[in-house]
Formats: sequence, C-alpha cells, structure tokens
Amino acid sequence: MSSGEDDSANETSGEEQLIGRYFRPLATTPGAFALGDDAAVLTPPPGCDLVLSTDGVIAGVHFLAEDPPDSIARKVLRMNLSDLAAKGATPVGFLLSIALPAETQGSWVAGFAAGLGQDIEHYACPLLGGDTDRTPGPLSVSIAAFGTVPHGGMVRRATAKPGNIIAVTGTIGDAALGVLLHREASLAERWQLSAASRTHLRDRYLLPQPRNVLAEALRHNASAAMDVSDGLVGDLAKLCRASGVAAEIDVASVPLSDAARGALSADAKLVERILTGGDDYEILATLSSANFSAFRAAAAEAGVAVTQIGEVTSGQGVLFRHDGKVLSFARPAYTHF
Amino acid sequence: MSSGEDDSANETSGEEQLIGRYFRPLATTPGAFALGDDAAVLTPPPGCDLVLSTDGVIAGVHFLAEDPPDSIARKVLRMNLSDLAAKGATPVGFLLSIALPAETQGSWVAGFAAGLGQDIEHYACPLLGGDTDRTPGPLSVSIAAFGTVPHGGMVRRATAKPGNIIAVTGTIGDAALGVLLHREASLAERWQLSAASRTHLRDRYLLPQPRNVLAEALRHNASAAMDVSDGLVGDLAKLCRASGVAAEIDVASVPLSDAARGALSADAKLVERILTGGDDYEILATLSSANFSAFRAAAAEAGVAVTQIGEVTSGQGVLFRHDGKVLSFARPAYTHF
Repeated sequence: MSSGEDDSANETSGEEQLIGRYFRPLATTPGAFALGDDAAVLTPPPGCDLVLSTDGVIAGVHFLAEDPPDSIARKVLRMNLSDLAAKGATPVGFLLSIALPAETQGSWVAGFAAGLGQDIEHYACPLLGGDTDRTPGPLSVSIAAFGTVPHGGMVRRATAKPGNIIAVTGTIGDAALGVLLHREASLAERWQLSAASRTHLRDRYLLPQPRNVLAEALRHNASAAMDVSDGLVGDLAKLCRASGVAAEIDVASVPLSDAARGALSADAKLVERILTGGDDYEILATLSSANFSAFRAAAAEAGVAVTQIGEVTSGQGVLFRHDGKVLSFARPAYTHF
Repeated sequence: MSSGEDDSANETSGEEQLIGRYFRPLATTPGAFALGDDAAVLTPPPGCDLVLSTDGVIAGVHFLAEDPPDSIARKVLRMNLSDLAAKGATPVGFLLSIALPAETQGSWVAGFAAGLGQDIEHYACPLLGGDTDRTPGPLSVSIAAFGTVPHGGMVRRATAKPGNIIAVTGTIGDAALGVLLHREASLAERWQLSAASRTHLRDRYLLPQPRNVLAEALRHNASAAMDVSDGLVGDLAKLCRASGVAAEIDVASVPLSDAARGALSADAKLVERILTGGDDYEILATLSSANFSAFRAAAAEAGVAVTQIGEVTSGQGVLFRHDGKVLSFARPAYTHF
C-alpha cells in the first residue's frame, strides 16, 4: 500500500468486467438491476405460488469440456426449465452461479452467454442475478430457476393414484444413446445408424427440449408428474415411492425415436441404457383415463406426442414387462453416488 | 442387464440415501416436500416482493479444506443472509447446491448438515430444496436465498445521495486479519495478540454475524445499502459508481475491534488489509442526518454498533483520508479475477 492521489480505490475488478461484458447484456428485466446490486427483485403475481428448482452441471461429469459452450448454457437452463414444466409452472426467471477455471477463454464465456441469451428469449425466462467465481477445479454451472403456478396448483410427485394411466412425452433414451455416440463415434457403425440418426441422438444429448408448452395442460390433467432426468426406470420408481403406489410398464410401448429403434435392433442390450440412461427431459405423468385423453389432445395441439406406457397399481415396486418377462436392471438410475 | 424377478428398479440410489440421511431432516417446511419432489413451493405473502441472492464457496478458494464443516455451512448461508439483510429483506428460505468429492466422509456431511440446521433455526430461514453432485474437483457449495420486502421496499445500491452520511455496522477488517492468522498462526506473535484477540479474529473469519436484525431499520432509514463482502474500499466504490456519486472517508473513524487495533499498532501496513480484505459481512449504508440518528438508535437497541465513517459527495471516486493524506490501494477489493 502506498500513499498518494491516485484512483486505485475506484477501479473495477476483473470479475466486474467479465460480468459487465458477457452477462449484464442478458439481464434486461428491471428486477435484475443490470446485475448491479446485491440481490434481484421478483414481484410474484397475486394469487400465485412460486415454484423453485435448482440443478447444475460440472465439466467431466455432466458434459465434456470440449462441448460447445452455447449448448452447455442452454442445456443447464433447460434442465431447470424441464423441472418447472413437469410441475406445471410458468418460468419467471433464474439465478446463475458459474465457477470458471483460470484458463477459461473469453471466447468460451461469450459462447456460453450467447446460448443463454437465446434460451432466455425463447423461454421468456429472464436472468435475474448470479455469482461468478474462479475455481481450481472443473468448470461448473448451477442454476436456480423460478416459476409460478396458481396458489396450490403445483403438480406433485407424490399424488399418483392406483388405476391412473402412466404416460410420457416425446421419446425415451435418445440422449442416453447420444452421449455414448458423442464420446465414441465408432458406435454409429456398430449400431448401423444413418447420418441423420447420429445427428438426432447427439442433438438430443446436447440440447434437451423441455416441455414447458405443456405446463398448463399438466396442471389441469395430471394427478402427478416429474421430468425424466435420471432415467425412466429410476424416476418412475421415485414417483411411485413418493406416492405410495406401484406400477407396471409395458416396455414395448415406451416411445422410441427411429434412431433409437435402429440402434436397439442392432444391439438388443441397449434397452437397459434407453430405460435407465437419463437426460431425457421428457415428462412422466400419471392421469385418469378421461384426463389422459384431454392431455394427449392438448399436447398434440402443441406438437408434442404423449404415449401411454403403463398403469399405476396398488402396492410397492415398479415392474417393466418385456416379452412376457420382467426386466431387472444393473443400474436402475443415473447417479454419481 | 439381466432378466428375472428382482427388485433392481426400486432401489434408492446413493444420492437419495445421502439426501435422506443428512438433508431431509432439515427440510421441515411444508413447501420443501421433504426434498421428495422436483421443486419446492413458496407462497409469497400478499403485497411483498421477493428478494433473491446467490453466493457460494469453493474449497481452497473461499475456505480451507480442513475448516470445520459446520462453520463452512453456516458461513455460506450467512453470506447470503447478509445480502438479504443489506437489502432490508426478511429471509424466507433457500436452495442448496453442493458438489462433493468422492472421498468426502459421511462425518463431514453430518457436520455440515448440523451447522446448517443450527442456522436454519437461528435465522428462521428454511431449507426449501437442493441439488447434490459428485465432483472430481474441490468441494463447493452454492446457495440461492430468498427474502421478502413490502412491494417496492428493497434497499438499493444505486440510490445514495450527495450529503448523505456513510455508516457501517460492527467493525471492519477482523475477518481479513482472521484468515491470515488462520493460515499462519505465527502472525499472532508478530502482531502481539492476546489469546482472546486471536480467537476473536479467527471467529470473525469462520463465522460472520450477518445483520438481519437491522433489515427493517435499514428499509425505513437508508437511502442505499450493501453488505461489505469484498472489502470496504471496493464495495464503497461499487455503491458510489452505481449511485453516480463520490465519497470521502475518514479512515481514523472506521470502527475497529480491539484485536484489529492491536494488530494495526504492531504493523501499520495492515490498514490496507483491513480496508480491502473483505469477508466483513457488515452493512455499509448511506443515510440523511435525521435518518442516521434513527438508524443508529434502532441498531443500538438491537445491540449493533453503527458508526459514521464519511460522507457522500457529488462527482466520481472514493477518497480514503488518513493523517491528512489520501490512501491508495494496491488491490482495492477482494477478487479472484
């Protein structure tokens, strides 16, 4: 420390410069105060509950360090948007925490911010605030996302009823195959995949399609729901345990993309990967028969397929029936523990 | 994958067991659904805004890996509570994201959860939800905390006015000296510190005392406020830049603990560390003269000292005057960038 008339107390730090350059342009909603305050403000609409989700990713665990930064940003936001969708909530904003290794290039942060900006706009989910740090470890990103539902309207996981239909949106297993392909390109040959199929599976891994367009239809029709992030088998088991019910699934009716169906024809063992690999970000819902028809119709109108895959029963446990047998799984859900 | 009648689809994962054992007992508020859903629910009181803060810590950056796990938990929660306090907000809950290296012991997690539980109760700030991951990097914790203020009532950083008094709560610099002592015990001799002084400084580093008790008084009296986390010099400069004002500080009036005053007598150069080291979690506020008296009285009633340290002026820049000179700083604020 020295004495003298200089301006050292008034310089902006590297952290402020990074935030100012890459993230401030994204924080255009008034309650974000252009990331220039200690906190953000959210004025909840009267009569609404706030639905709160948090999920994050770590380089080398949830994505590869060389994955495109814009898709990493979009994926981690979409993972949280998918939770909000499954709960019937309309997104209202999010907080971003990002830990960057010292060697992170400005171009990486620029790509990350560009991807985030695209999805902020697409999903009308504003950046409200955040936290930026240097880390000696791998790059990591954590998001806390907020949505609204009419008071008492959140779709729970614990409220499935025996006799309900079990349904999923979209297709299952694409991302779980996509990440294998992404890590080992030679699998495309073994699985006899066309270029289009390879691209489809890889894209489903890099960029989930959360079903936020179905939030309202879920609120009106589902008895229970959650998003499929850790694999259909493990996630359905969680829903059933939470609800105190059992389930039977007809594996042949689980919706697969043409690409996944192709890979499965080449290697029948992939059925475990498809059912347990996770990263689907589809919605698993339970519904009465009447509500199932209404939900499927609303989803069709929104361009999303909904497929009945089984039924909620009383008791405990989840049975996956396939060719007259009950499947068992070496690793029922994606977990790092 | 094998076929047969077993229960593999229905086992709980290691992650679920860890959450169930250590964190579920903390999630007693109804909207947390005992951490058994995809998301939490918060019903904001009518007429209130939600104030959102996020801040985190990384082992080796913000704390030492061998620091007691209960104090790490309490500190990261208190860092966020301090942001809410400075904004005049009453805490209503938080989300916890934690990334654990594979070698983390159950006893560490138990200690962490015990510390968190103590402060959840003390600050009436319930755990609403969270996210747990394994990391190949250092242990890290990120919290998103939520508070409420009457609509439009958040205390901003950008609203200081020329002529306002600049005040801080408590004492400045203790934690910045405490972390040096914590890392290099021999400094206690060089600084001629008593055992009580050593303990005081170390405790102020390990366990901040956020000023949530002053939230209402700040809302009623402060023209602007923020908490001092990155050091008084840098944080005041941020407040002034945000407000478009300048400031003059009388360094001799910056409140110091007996311990910090003792260390400073032994080594006059420590004044830079005290003013820029950060981790204070005191409140920096600007107030009119009349409001300053009211705020100081309310704080005294709550057992918190408030000290006038300078004045907001018009123009740009922050001057720290000491013995007739203006101090300059080699590193005005704590930053990793």
